[in-house]
Amino acid sequence: MSSANAFNDALTDHHGETPIDMAELRRYRQGNGATDAALESAVQEVRRLTLAWSDGRTGQFPLMWLRDHCACDQCRHPLTRERLYKLLDDPLWERFATDEALAAFEFDDRSLTLTWQDGHVSRFDAGWLHQRCPGHELTTLLPTATPWVEAFTPAHVSHADFVGNGDGRSRWASALLRDGLVMLDQGPCELEEVSRIAESIGPMRSTNFGGRFDVRSVPNPNNAAYTAIGLELHTDLPNWRQPPDIQLLYCLENDAEGGESSFADGFAVAEILREENPEAFRVLSETPIDFRFQDDGHDIAVREPVIDLDGDGRPREIRFNNWIRDTLSLPADRIEAWYEAYRAFWQILRRPERRVELTLEPGQMIAFDNRRVLHGRNAFDPNTGKRHLQGTYLDLDMLQSHLRVLSR
Amino acid sequence: MSSANAFNDALTDHHGETPIDMAELRRYRQGNGATDAALESAVQEVRRLTLAWSDGRTGQFPLMWLRDHCACDQCRHPLTRERLYKLLDDPLWERFATDEALAAFEFDDRSLTLTWQDGHVSRFDAGWLHQRCPGHELTTLLPTATPWVEAFTPAHVSHADFVGNGDGRSRWASALLRDGLVMLDQGPCELEEVSRIAESIGPMRSTNFGGRFDVRSVPNPNNAAYTAIGLELHTDLPNWRQPPDIQLLYCLENDAEGGESSFADGFAVAEILREENPEAFRVLSETPIDFRFQDDGHDIAVREPVIDLDGDGRPREIRFNNWIRDTLSLPADRIEAWYEAYRAFWQILRRPERRVELTLEPGQMIAFDNRRVLHGRNAFDPNTGKRHLQGTYLDLDMLQSHLRVLSR
Repeated sequence: MSSANAFNDALTDHHGETPIDMAELRRYRQGNGATDAALESAVQEVRRLTLAWSDGRTGQFPLMWLRDHCACDQCRHPLTRERLYKLLDDPLWERFATDEALAAFEFDDRSLTLTWQDGHVSRFDAGWLHQRCPGHELTTLLPTATPWVEAFTPAHVSHADFVGNGDGRSRWASALLRDGLVMLDQGPCELEEVSRIAESIGPMRSTNFGGRFDVRSVPNPNNAAYTAIGLELHTDLPNWRQPPDIQLLYCLENDAEGGESSFADGFAVAEILREENPEAFRVLSETPIDFRFQDDGHDIAVREPVIDLDGDGRPREIRFNNWIRDTLSLPADRIEAWYEAYRAFWQILRRPERRVELTLEPGQMIAFDNRRVLHGRNAFDPNTGKRHLQGTYLDLDMLQSHLRVLSR
Repeated sequence: MSSANAFNDALTDHHGETPIDMAELRRYRQGNGATDAALESAVQEVRRLTLAWSDGRTGQFPLMWLRDHCACDQCRHPLTRERLYKLLDDPLWERFATDEALAAFEFDDRSLTLTWQDGHVSRFDAGWLHQRCPGHELTTLLPTATPWVEAFTPAHVSHADFVGNGDGRSRWASALLRDGLVMLDQGPCELEEVSRIAESIGPMRSTNFGGRFDVRSVPNPNNAAYTAIGLELHTDLPNWRQPPDIQLLYCLENDAEGGESSFADGFAVAEILREENPEAFRVLSETPIDFRFQDDGHDIAVREPVIDLDGDGRPREIRFNNWIRDTLSLPADRIEAWYEAYRAFWQILRRPERRVELTLEPGQMIAFDNRRVLHGRNAFDPNTGKRHLQGTYLDLDMLQSHLRVLSR
């Protein structure tokens, strides 16, 4: 048994037994989605076992599935926990069709043991099987993305809570996954604090603007963010095939006049558009357009729709950035309809009740899901004071992973 | 006019004129896709101008499109070249419907000048418009991905040519975009040479394995690559929402017995599966399954199909990695069909005529598109010699951008 597994689950098992090591670091004997139910019956049917637990759950487990999920040290690497078993190379696999694969099985309250025709033995923790019953979804550890209601305000977490040993970090990550926007308060006004926070979650996602960037007015900008002009609500880097997921913006100085920040939930705005103007929604979600950034060293371009939908027709990603829209390359008879749809979406983005407006204070860090939440700022006057933010990007995978690890 | 634009196009214009600056670094007066044709007529019709050139091309340009694409210093930032013009804030936009927006226009062989009702003047280079005629596609600068034929062998480029001033770098990038696999030969056996090559193209894509990783056998591995075991053909990090695009693997030492490398074109294999076993193809392309990596600090998981198709039904991405397939979470009556489909795909991957087999020599670097081309290696015996590769990932966006910049 791996020490990590023992730490997370086995040592704290309130049944006083040692659970079977399923090569799994997520807890399966207690906590979220685990069960106290006992395995009560196991019946062999055609090419499968039907298992039943004391809480009434019943599951059909194809023999193929059981063989493939064997977690013994030969089938899963004892250190990496990765699957070593190759079903393509196992002669047993030819015997599943004729029900000759399984030689014997036995079970008790907490385990199931299978002996295959070739002599290999597979043992399963009954609680692990209960969670993974075919047809039942494993309980997710991640919050569901929830559209902003009118006058939404983001959750706040203090920097002290975030770096402390309590649940501050989990609350911060959960709010970010749920709302796409969360504020960290009262952090130190130190250069690179944003990098330290990012790297405590995962590696910074580097782009053509570097791994960690400074947002301030500079003499020879290569993009609008590095000027003092106002920035209409937008998503960053929609000209990439995979725009950055999570953006962290840490405020170090903000005493110039202007420069207030604004945010809007692009998914919520897209749903409003769908309701108010279905044709505009259809046009923006079905029409790929070109986005492109060019400077002396780069020419980064992609063709994607403004509203990208998943297989179920729900918004999955918003690409909205008026600066780096490239030439609109469409047949002449579709151009005007596209512009009208674009204007309709943009008009909803401007509605005050759909926006969060705030002034970042030094020591605050705003974090948002750049594929969902648009951000912008008012113009500021660099002659009246300084405005300096440091920012970086993180992969959503790393944020989700972080929350899963925190919940072990 | 920006100096970069002047360098790329204007100074070399063989008409001896100064072209109109279209805030565009791609060449539009000569080279790939440019035209010598003269603008011969411009006719105003309902809400559009119809333009005709001396080579017979005719284009309908909606007035909205022309206004939105004005490239003057007020409409595009003179340094960043980004669009400043906001169509949502322009009162002129209400007048397009009634044909009152355009006050006057004039043209000559090489230019079109529009005066809008509000007095704003927009000038267009006629060659730029010719390239961007609605309904015509701008000539791509990138090669098309081409499936491997049987007994395909990758292109080779020498390290000297790659770092030299000739076309080695373009040939290398083109082969990688076209074939998904290209070999660099005779490079120095120096640590971090792979990082220098990567960073000459774009920032390294960091993952949970770091920005630049060492592939060799280590005592306490957290994944199979860091052992000496054989690695079946696979794609890296299919458990990420966005797996790394381009992988660079640079060989520093390879004198252990075994360790030969193999590669296969996943798109070509998917097409063979579609032809030989349409039902298996359907199952693998329509069934999202779980991929997951877990170690002490990570739990990175995603649910995606093995074969991901684009909107036109063509393979867009392959996720195949038997180690980090997670629990197969499907209704019981779909599990056996999924396994049969998976076995069918895997069997085609094993066919010798579909694989490239080679032994990496010190100083060679293999580069491949990890979303398309699977890679693997035979087991090696660390007691017979050393095997050490250094690797990193790059975003496909950066590779494409690099080739576009090289072709300016």
